[in-house]
Amino acid sequence: MPSGYRHSRQDVVYEEDQYELTEDGRIPIPYRRTAKYQDGNTIDWLHEEGLERERNHALQSQAGVRGILLPVLESTRMWFIVIMTGIGIGIAGAWLDVLVKWLGDLREGHCTYGFFYNSNACCSGLDAGEVCQAWQSWGDYFKLNSIFGRSLLQASIYVILAIAFAGSAAALVVTYAPHAFHTGIPEIKAILGGYVFDAFLTPWTLLIKAIGLALAVASGLSLGKEGPLVHVACCMAYFLSRLFKEFRHNEAQKRRVLAAAAAAGVSVAFGSPLGGVLFGLEELDTFANESDVMWRGFVASAIAAVSLQWVNPFGTAKLVLFQVTFVSDSWRAFELIPWVILGVIGGVLGSLLIRLNVEIALYRRNSILSKMPVLEVVTVSAVTAAVSYLIVFARVQTSELVANLFLECDPAKGDYHGLCNPTATMENVFLLCLTAILKIVLTAWTFGLMVPAGIFLPTIAIGACLGRAMGLITQSLYRAHPTAWIFLSCPPDPSVRCISPGFYSVIGAAAMLGGVTRMTISLVVILFELTGALSHVLPIMICVMTSKWVGDAMGKDGIYSVWIAMRRYPWLPPVDYRDKGETGANLMIPLSRVISIEEGVTTVRDLRVLLKTHQFHGFPIVDSHGEFVGYATRQELIATLDCLQLNETEEDMNKKCTFSKNRLRIPAEERVDLSDALEDSVIQLRKEVPQELVVNMFQKLNLRQIIFTHAGKLTGLVTKRDVVNLLTSHFPHAAALAQHPPHNRHTL
Amino acid sequence: MPSGYRHSRQDVVYEEDQYELTEDGRIPIPYRRTAKYQDGNTIDWLHEEGLERERNHALQSQAGVRGILLPVLESTRMWFIVIMTGIGIGIAGAWLDVLVKWLGDLREGHCTYGFFYNSNACCSGLDAGEVCQAWQSWGDYFKLNSIFGRSLLQASIYVILAIAFAGSAAALVVTYAPHAFHTGIPEIKAILGGYVFDAFLTPWTLLIKAIGLALAVASGLSLGKEGPLVHVACCMAYFLSRLFKEFRHNEAQKRRVLAAAAAAGVSVAFGSPLGGVLFGLEELDTFANESDVMWRGFVASAIAAVSLQWVNPFGTAKLVLFQVTFVSDSWRAFELIPWVILGVIGGVLGSLLIRLNVEIALYRRNSILSKMPVLEVVTVSAVTAAVSYLIVFARVQTSELVANLFLECDPAKGDYHGLCNPTATMENVFLLCLTAILKIVLTAWTFGLMVPAGIFLPTIAIGACLGRAMGLITQSLYRAHPTAWIFLSCPPDPSVRCISPGFYSVIGAAAMLGGVTRMTISLVVILFELTGALSHVLPIMICVMTSKWVGDAMGKDGIYSVWIAMRRYPWLPPVDYRDKGETGANLMIPLSRVISIEEGVTTVRDLRVLLKTHQFHGFPIVDSHGEFVGYATRQELIATLDCLQLNETEEDMNKKCTFSKNRLRIPAEERVDLSDALEDSVIQLRKEVPQELVVNMFQKLNLRQIIFTHAGKLTGLVTKRDVVNLLTSHFPHAAALAQHPPHNRHTL
Repeated sequence: MPSGYRHSRQDVVYEEDQYELTEDGRIPIPYRRTAKYQDGNTIDWLHEEGLERERNHALQSQAGVRGILLPVLESTRMWFIVIMTGIGIGIAGAWLDVLVKWLGDLREGHCTYGFFYNSNACCSGLDAGEVCQAWQSWGDYFKLNSIFGRSLLQASIYVILAIAFAGSAAALVVTYAPHAFHTGIPEIKAILGGYVFDAFLTPWTLLIKAIGLALAVASGLSLGKEGPLVHVACCMAYFLSRLFKEFRHNEAQKRRVLAAAAAAGVSVAFGSPLGGVLFGLEELDTFANESDVMWRGFVASAIAAVSLQWVNPFGTAKLVLFQVTFVSDSWRAFELIPWVILGVIGGVLGSLLIRLNVEIALYRRNSILSKMPVLEVVTVSAVTAAVSYLIVFARVQTSELVANLFLECDPAKGDYHGLCNPTATMENVFLLCLTAILKIVLTAWTFGLMVPAGIFLPTIAIGACLGRAMGLITQSLYRAHPTAWIFLSCPPDPSVRCISPGFYSVIGAAAMLGGVTRMTISLVVILFELTGALSHVLPIMICVMTSKWVGDAMGKDGIYSVWIAMRRYPWLPPVDYRDKGETGANLMIPLSRVISIEEGVTTVRDLRVLLKTHQFHGFPIVDSHGEFVGYATRQELIATLDCLQLNETEEDMNKKCTFSKNRLRIPAEERVDLSDALEDSVIQLRKEVPQELVVNMFQKLNLRQIIFTHAGKLTGLVTKRDVVNLLTSHFPHAAALAQHPPHNRHTL
Repeated sequence: MPSGYRHSRQDVVYEEDQYELTEDGRIPIPYRRTAKYQDGNTIDWLHEEGLERERNHALQSQAGVRGILLPVLESTRMWFIVIMTGIGIGIAGAWLDVLVKWLGDLREGHCTYGFFYNSNACCSGLDAGEVCQAWQSWGDYFKLNSIFGRSLLQASIYVILAIAFAGSAAALVVTYAPHAFHTGIPEIKAILGGYVFDAFLTPWTLLIKAIGLALAVASGLSLGKEGPLVHVACCMAYFLSRLFKEFRHNEAQKRRVLAAAAAAGVSVAFGSPLGGVLFGLEELDTFANESDVMWRGFVASAIAAVSLQWVNPFGTAKLVLFQVTFVSDSWRAFELIPWVILGVIGGVLGSLLIRLNVEIALYRRNSILSKMPVLEVVTVSAVTAAVSYLIVFARVQTSELVANLFLECDPAKGDYHGLCNPTATMENVFLLCLTAILKIVLTAWTFGLMVPAGIFLPTIAIGACLGRAMGLITQSLYRAHPTAWIFLSCPPDPSVRCISPGFYSVIGAAAMLGGVTRMTISLVVILFELTGALSHVLPIMICVMTSKWVGDAMGKDGIYSVWIAMRRYPWLPPVDYRDKGETGANLMIPLSRVISIEEGVTTVRDLRVLLKTHQFHGFPIVDSHGEFVGYATRQELIATLDCLQLNETEEDMNKKCTFSKNRLRIPAEERVDLSDALEDSVIQLRKEVPQELVVNMFQKLNLRQIIFTHAGKLTGLVTKRDVVNLLTSHFPHAAALAQHPPHNRHTL
C-alpha cells in the first residue's frame, strides 16, 4: 500500500501539473484523481471521504493565516448553501401556493379588476356579509342566463382548463425535462444513498418541475405538491453547490448538502419544520450516519419555514395548514375501537393502493401507453375532472377538501356541503366512501404519469374521507343509543357533543398515510404540525402503529421502496436483515469470475485492453501468488497511467504494472509504478462471515465493495449491487421499470 | 476458519451435553459458548449477534409446527417485555407523582380528615371561592397564635422535613443501592452502547431509586425526576428480561429491550411520547442502528403515555404538564432579538453549569466529602431549604414554579407572587435572576450527590426564570416606548398585549436545556409536547440552535457526555470524527505488544498459563509464519478447552493447540483442535487506512476490536477502549471519577 502522500501534510505541495487551480489561480488545493461518475453509477463513499480528507489537510497546512481562514471559509460555504436553499425553497413554496391558488380559481371564474388576482385576493377588504362582486364566474362573464347553459359552460371550462393545465404540464415534462415527472422521493433516496443521477438535479429540471407542479396541482389531478417540493429543494441545493469547487468535485459533500435541502423541502411542503428533519431521518435515512447532517437539516428546515412564514402567501401568518379545533381536549376510551378499525382499514387500503399503483405502472410500461404519455395525462385529467365535477367532495381542490373534513361542525361557521346535517348522515357516509374509492383509483393511476406528482395529499384526502365517514357513523350510533354502556363516558344527553368527526378525519389520514408510506414517527410529527392536534398525539400514534402493523403484514415495502425497487436504483433499505445461515461466500463473486490485475505480470498494454474491455468501476490487484495487493478504481488507473506520460512504443507498452514498492524484483526500467492508484480504504473480510454482517456493513458504512481474502489471498468480492439485489429479491417486480440497462454484476 | 457448524442449519442438532435445556427440558435451543461478561466489560456485539443468529436458525429448524411457532413465540416475548415495561413505567410514574405531591405538601401542613391526602385531594369538591378548612397548616395544628411563632414553626418544619427526606433518600442509596444515585442517563447510554453493568439494573436498585427519587424530589433539592425515571424504566425492563432465557443469555437482545424502555421512561417523565422516541434517537443514539428498535421504542413510548393518562394522577386527563396559553398565535420579528440573546445566555450559562458541576464533582471525589455522602446531602438540603424559603420563587416545588412562569398574566386568574404587577417589573427581574443564579449553584452541587437526581427540571426552571426576566424587560421597554420603530409591528396602545412574558420563559427553558444537554430536535419536541406551544415551534428551534452553537463554541460536550468521560465508560460519542492525517497505524497496538497464540507452537499448558496471566478479552491467533488465523475470546477458549476433557498428564499438557484444519502437519495425537473457539465475524483492515475510517467503523458497527493485517500477516489490533480514549482525549478530566481500575489497553 503506497501513498504516505495522502496521509502526511508536508507531502501536499503545490504542483501545477498535478493539481487543479481554483478560479482565481491563487489557492492550490489538490483535486487529484477526482473520480468522475457517470449517471447510473454509485459513488464510492470511502473514496470521496478520502478526497475530502486530503483536501482538508491541504487546507489546514496552508501557511499562516490561510491555514486558519481557508477551513473556516469551507464550512461557511456549506452553511451558505444550506441557508440559501432554505430561504429559496421557502420563497418558492410560498409562490407556488399563490400560483396554484390562482390557476385553480381560474377554472371557475376570474377577477374583474385584475386578471392576476385569485378569488380570495379579489374579494379581500369586504365587510362581513357583503357579497363579492369583483369575482365573476365564467357563467356571468359570458352572460348566460339559462341555468342549464351556465352549468354546462362552467363544467366545460372546468374540464377544459383542467385538461389544458395537465396537458401543458405533461408536454413541458416530456419535452424539456423527462426526469421532472413523478414525486422524486425515490430518486432522492437513491441519490442520498450514493446513486449518481445528476440529470435529475439540473436547473432545467428545477424549473420544469416547479412550473409543471403548479399546473398539475391546479388541474385538479389527484396529486399533491409535497414530494416534488423536496425534489425542487434538492435541485436548488445542487445548483448552489455547483458554484463551489469542493462540492462540484466531491460527491459525498454534495450529498450532505442535498440531505439538508430535502429536510427543508418537507418543512415547506407541510409547514412542518420538525417533520422535515424527521422525514430526513426516517424516510431518507440520511442523518443516521452523521449528527452534523441532522443538525444542518434542522437549520435548513427552520430557515425554510421562517421564509415561508415571512412571505406569508395567504396572509394568515400561520404555519399550520389545516388548523383543527376540537370539541374537547380529551378523548374517551371507547373511541379507540373505531380508531383501531380505521388503522386496520388504512393499512389494508394503503397496501391495495400500492399494489394497484404497481400494476398500473407495469401496464403503462408494457403497453402502448408508454408511447403517448401526454395523451395519457390528458385522458386521466379529463376523466378526473369529469368525475370530480359530479361528486361534491371531489370538485374542490384537494387541500380545501382536507381542510374542511378536518373541521368540526360549528353552527356559527356554517355547514360545509351538508357534512354537518344530522339527517343526512348515511348519504354523507356513502358519498365520503365513494370519494375515497374514486380517489384511490385515480391516485393509483396518476402517481406515475408524466407530470410532477406527490402522493401525500391525495392519501391524506382518502384517509380523511374514510375517517370522517367513521366519525359520522360513530356519532350517529351515539345519537341513536346515547345511554348504551359503551357510551357511558359520554354525557347522556345526545345534544351535547361527545364525538368529534373532524378528528376522526385526522386519524383516518394518519392511518392511510401509514399504510402507504410505512413511516411512523415522522408521520406523526408531520400530522400534528399540520393540524396542531398536539393533545391528540396518542390516538394518532396508536393509529399509525396499527396501520403499519397491518400494512407490513400485507407487504413489507412502502410506496417509495416499491418504486425504488421497480426502477432498480442501487439503494439499500435500512431494514434489519437476518440471513438464514448463509455466509459471505453465498453473496460473493468468486475469484474465478473476478477480473483482477496481476502485479508484475499485467503489462501496460494488457491494462489498457482490460480497461477498454471491462466497464467495471474498479479492479482488485493480486500478486503472482494470488495475494491481495490492493484495489484501484478504473478512474484512478486511467489518471495514473496518463500521469506517467508513456509513449506508444513497444518498450513502454510491455512494461509491467507494479503497485507495491518493496516486494519487487523487476528492474526499474521494465516496470511502471502505479501505486498511486491504490485506494487507502479497503475493507477485507473472510468469506466465512455471516451474510448479515456483510449486509450490515454495506448499510452502515455506505460501502461500494468489500474484498474477501483468506490468509492474504484474494478469494472474491461483493458489490453494493449484489447486496441490493439480495434485499429486493422478495419483490416480484424488481427492476421492472429500470431505465439503465442491467450492468455487469460488479459495475455498479 | 472452522465451524461450518454455525452456518448450516442441518448441523444444529440436539445434543444434551452441548446445549443447555430450557426450564421444562423440552425444547433444546443451543446456548453454546455463551460469553459471560463481568461488570465493567464491553460486550462483543458481533459475537452476541452470532449467538442470536445461531439460536434463530436452531429455532427455525425445529421439526413441524415447532419450527413455526417457536420463532413467533420469541418475538412475542420481546413485545411482552416492551409492552409490560411501558405499562409498568406509566403506572410507576403516575404513583411517583402522587407520592411526591403528598410528601411535598406534608412540609407545609396536613389533611385533617385523612393523613394520606395531599392538599389538592383534601380540598377537592369545594365550590369556587369556598375556603378549604380541611387542609391545616402546621401553624394551625399546633395552635400557635403569634405570627412570628407561626412563621418560625412553619419554616422549621419545612427545613427539617426537607432534611429528613433528603437524608433518608441518601441513607437508602448509600446503604442499599449505591448505583441508584445521580441521573442514570450516562450509565444507560454506556450500557446501550455495549457496556456491561448489571449491578446498575437490579430490582433492588429499581426499588431504592424509585423511593429515593420521591423523597429527594419532595425534599425540595434542586433536582428533577426525568433522568431517574429512565433508569427506573430500564431496571423494569431488565427485571422482566430476566424471565426469559433468550434475553438472559444474549446481551444484544437485552439492549434492544432496554432501548425501548428508555424511550418509555422519557415518555412518562415529560408526558411526551414522541419526545421519548426522539430522545432515544438523538441522545441515546440507539435507534440509528436498527429501525426495529425505533419502532419498539415508539410502541413502548405510546403505551407508557396511555397508562400514565389512564392512572391520571391529578385528574386532569392531560399529558401536557405545563399547559401554556398565549396572548396570540403569532409572534413578531423584533422578538427574535431577545430570543437570540436568550439563546446566547442559555449557551453560556449551560456551559458554565457543566463546568461548575465538573469542578464540584472533582472536589467531592478528592476531598473528605467522599467519605460522608449522607452528611453532604443533609447539608445541601438544609442550605437549599433555608435559602429557598427566603426567596419566593424558590420556595414552591420546582415544577409548580415552572408551570407558573410559563403562564401568561391573566387578571381573571389572579396574580402569581406579584409576577404580573406592572409597577414591580425591576424587582421581579432582580428576583428572577437571583433565583436563576441560586439554582445554577445549587443544581451544580446537587447533580452528583448520593441521591437520585435529574438535571432536566432544574435546568428548565433556571431557563424559565431567565426567560421570564427577559420577557419582563422587553415588555417594560415596550410599555415605555410603545411608538418606537422597533415596536412598530405591535399595536401603538401599550395596554393591548403584544409581548407574552410566559412564552419568553419557554424560550429561556429551551435555551438553557440546549446549553446543558446539547440536544436539538428531541429537545424541541419534548418542549412543545410539554407546553403545547406548537404554533411557536420556530422560535424554539431558533433558540435551541443559537444556544447549541454558543455552547459548542465553549466546549463540545453536553453534561451527560462529560459524566461519561469522567466515569470512563466505554461509550463512543456519535461525533463526526475527522483525523488530522493519522492512519490506523497511529491507533493500533503494534504486533510487538499484542499477546497472541501461535498455532502449532503454543501448547495446552502455555495456553492455560496465558489465560491465567492475561486478563484480555480475547487473543488473536497466528501461525508460525505470523499469518493471521483468527480471533478467539478468552471465554470461548476456556469453554473449548473444558469440552476437550484433557487430563492433567504431561502428554495432554504438551499437545499443541491448532485452529485450522487443512494446513497442519502435526500428527493428530500430538495436537488438540480448538477451531470451535474461533470467532466467525472478524473484521480486518490494513494499518494504512485513515484513522477516521477506523473510528467510523467502531461507531457504526458497534465493534469491540479490529484486527490489522498486511498480506495475511497480523500487524496489530485496535480495541474499543483505544477509540474511546482517542475521542475523549480532549477532555481534561477524563476518567477522573472512574470506578473500575484502569484496565490493560485491550481488555475492555
